[in-house]
Amino acid sequence: MTKALPVSPLALPLPELPAVGGVRFATAAAGIRYQGRTDVLLAEFAPGTTVAGMFTRNRCPGAPVTWCRDRLPAGEARGLLVNAGNANVFNGAAGEAAVRATAEAASRVLGCRPEQIFLASTGVIGEPMPAERIVAVVDDLAARLSPDGWEQASRAIMTTDTFPKAATRTASIGGVTVRISGIAKGSGMIAPDMATMLAFIVTDAVIAAPVLQDMLRRGVEPSFNSITVDSDTSTSDTVLLFATGAAANPATIAARDLAAFRRALFEILHDLALMVIRDGEGVRKLIEIGVVGATSARSARRIGLAIANSPLVKTAVAGEDANWGRIVMAVGKSGEPAERDKLAVAIGGVWMARAGRIVEGYDEAPVVKHMRGSEIRIDVDLGLGRGRATVWGCDLTHGYIDINGSYRS
Amino acid sequence: MTKALPVSPLALPLPELPAVGGVRFATAAAGIRYQGRTDVLLAEFAPGTTVAGMFTRNRCPGAPVTWCRDRLPAGEARGLLVNAGNANVFNGAAGEAAVRATAEAASRVLGCRPEQIFLASTGVIGEPMPAERIVAVVDDLAARLSPDGWEQASRAIMTTDTFPKAATRTASIGGVTVRISGIAKGSGMIAPDMATMLAFIVTDAVIAAPVLQDMLRRGVEPSFNSITVDSDTSTSDTVLLFATGAAANPATIAARDLAAFRRALFEILHDLALMVIRDGEGVRKLIEIGVVGATSARSARRIGLAIANSPLVKTAVAGEDANWGRIVMAVGKSGEPAERDKLAVAIGGVWMARAGRIVEGYDEAPVVKHMRGSEIRIDVDLGLGRGRATVWGCDLTHGYIDINGSYRS
Repeated sequence: MTKALPVSPLALPLPELPAVGGVRFATAAAGIRYQGRTDVLLAEFAPGTTVAGMFTRNRCPGAPVTWCRDRLPAGEARGLLVNAGNANVFNGAAGEAAVRATAEAASRVLGCRPEQIFLASTGVIGEPMPAERIVAVVDDLAARLSPDGWEQASRAIMTTDTFPKAATRTASIGGVTVRISGIAKGSGMIAPDMATMLAFIVTDAVIAAPVLQDMLRRGVEPSFNSITVDSDTSTSDTVLLFATGAAANPATIAARDLAAFRRALFEILHDLALMVIRDGEGVRKLIEIGVVGATSARSARRIGLAIANSPLVKTAVAGEDANWGRIVMAVGKSGEPAERDKLAVAIGGVWMARAGRIVEGYDEAPVVKHMRGSEIRIDVDLGLGRGRATVWGCDLTHGYIDINGSYRS
Repeated sequence: MTKALPVSPLALPLPELPAVGGVRFATAAAGIRYQGRTDVLLAEFAPGTTVAGMFTRNRCPGAPVTWCRDRLPAGEARGLLVNAGNANVFNGAAGEAAVRATAEAASRVLGCRPEQIFLASTGVIGEPMPAERIVAVVDDLAARLSPDGWEQASRAIMTTDTFPKAATRTASIGGVTVRISGIAKGSGMIAPDMATMLAFIVTDAVIAAPVLQDMLRRGVEPSFNSITVDSDTSTSDTVLLFATGAAANPATIAARDLAAFRRALFEILHDLALMVIRDGEGVRKLIEIGVVGATSARSARRIGLAIANSPLVKTAVAGEDANWGRIVMAVGKSGEPAERDKLAVAIGGVWMARAGRIVEGYDEAPVVKHMRGSEIRIDVDLGLGRGRATVWGCDLTHGYIDINGSYRS
């Protein structure tokens, strides 16, 4: 399970990650599943830190997801404990006991209540969680907390990821500059066995928990909820956003004063989500799908995801085949309102089909060239309304089969 | 496009197909796309033949689908004209003109009205339909009609199919023995580019069109609507059922007297649907998924299809990995009611997870042996209600990528 995968050809370099006031990190190698690498992350937040979260819609979520959901209404966080290698999913009451044991251990070393500790686990499911291995390293973690631990943090949470993922921005709130930084893991497919999408974002801004939650909820729609690698939804997907308040910006903020912060936050969510796609299992090409003219934004997103999830569209892109017929099929199978004679499809900016039929004599040369590139753009115009959305996916290659179809025994 | 694919390892031999009273066939090589093989099928039905049909739910259906839907309320058929190589989808008004031209040509040689001709096309989409090539062969077809043409019929409608598909049964209605025979094509994936699912069933029974339609509607649910290769829905899927009346069974039939006929019809639909899966693109293993304990039959089928469509479940089966965790994930992602602590999963009849956790000490040897076979059985018990369903799918292999990701240029 520790086979080294080649780094994705679409990998991005890790940006410089300055300290964010009010948060410190430490990582450790607890040997939960992997050997010779870190697999536990502890983050400590300053007193008064607020928190927001969004979680998987899977009906069989992991025990840590349930724990975090239950903690969210209080809106306060003092610590975050994450492990890679075991997702602590489908472990019954033992899974819940493991969650409590690790939260208690972290709260002890951080001097807070267990309910102020947020948890996330990623890795195999259905295997008993060796909570004692995490508990065994928390004292050491607490002794080594550092504000400069962002890069180590981004590496400790990886599973089948081939590169660490992080993004950072600054923004001004009421004349005070605040920083927002985030890390993510996800080898694309949002799935339970050795992969899942986790993201943790920290800002030093002062922002009340309900405001934070509202922004995060809106922000994940066009980012993490608009990406897909293989349509499979992990039992552990978790996005947590923490605001430590260290920047001491004015606490009473009008919505208008948060515009720059919101924009920066959305950019980080967008960047992290796309990094997950760029590390999709077996990925060779990123696919960006713009849908306009749908009856609603929701309908547009569903149509975009039907295209992004279609194995036939994904294999066509892998084969560098500008197969607009499969795109028409995917639009039709989405079940969303569509009319053949108003539908138009473009690849690489060249409209190949319009008004229910092929565009006679369209220029194929730029399309062929575009398909050979590593970032493929598909546009669909339903011609029905003003609903629009952009979604991102990736191609389906032999690499995906190799990674997911390998013999376990 | 005429690359010879190796015959599926799960192929079944073509059964003997006796004549069915009231129907005659002829096939021809019209060179629509393929060279050196037949690609047009004409069937002639006796006067008084009734017809029922079920069609794709894709919102961008082909012109022949729209034509058949419009003809169905009249309930009468004198001819069937099918071509392979061009699906006549997304061709605008030209597609509709092609439909009318071919229906008129067939009606002329069969001596009936164009509205009594049913049509189906399968192949590439968005390419102008060369209707003139079909029109050019109808006189010759009419001159060669034969009651013994079943096998040739099953071959003329193939696209990426690697073996011809047919099934036949007899049943008694009011003391009279009637025959039902059907042919199908579909290389598994129910998709628009060089593949689609078509099935044509003919019986010599006397059955009124509304009764026939009701039976067909019920029959496709547990058969053609319970199979999936890759979740992509063709724009051309068509199932047509014709009753010629040549057997002259009593025309006024109580529902009870049709029980044996219905059973035989459902068996044929089941057999044909499973043959499509057995010819799924790149298939190595057939997957049968039994879902019980769901809150409804509809919910059970959705859960089954979520499992059957999961790329992670499909690649795990390809890798002979009894990965029940991915099955739990797929149940959860279906969005249907499920409770972790009531959920149970079995592979090859061995319950590996029950009551929300792994079954300690289950016997892995028979599971490993089962995974090496070519027919994989997965059972899921939701433990919530009495809803049950069985669905069928196949594994996801390198062969699928090869077939669908090949360069078109």
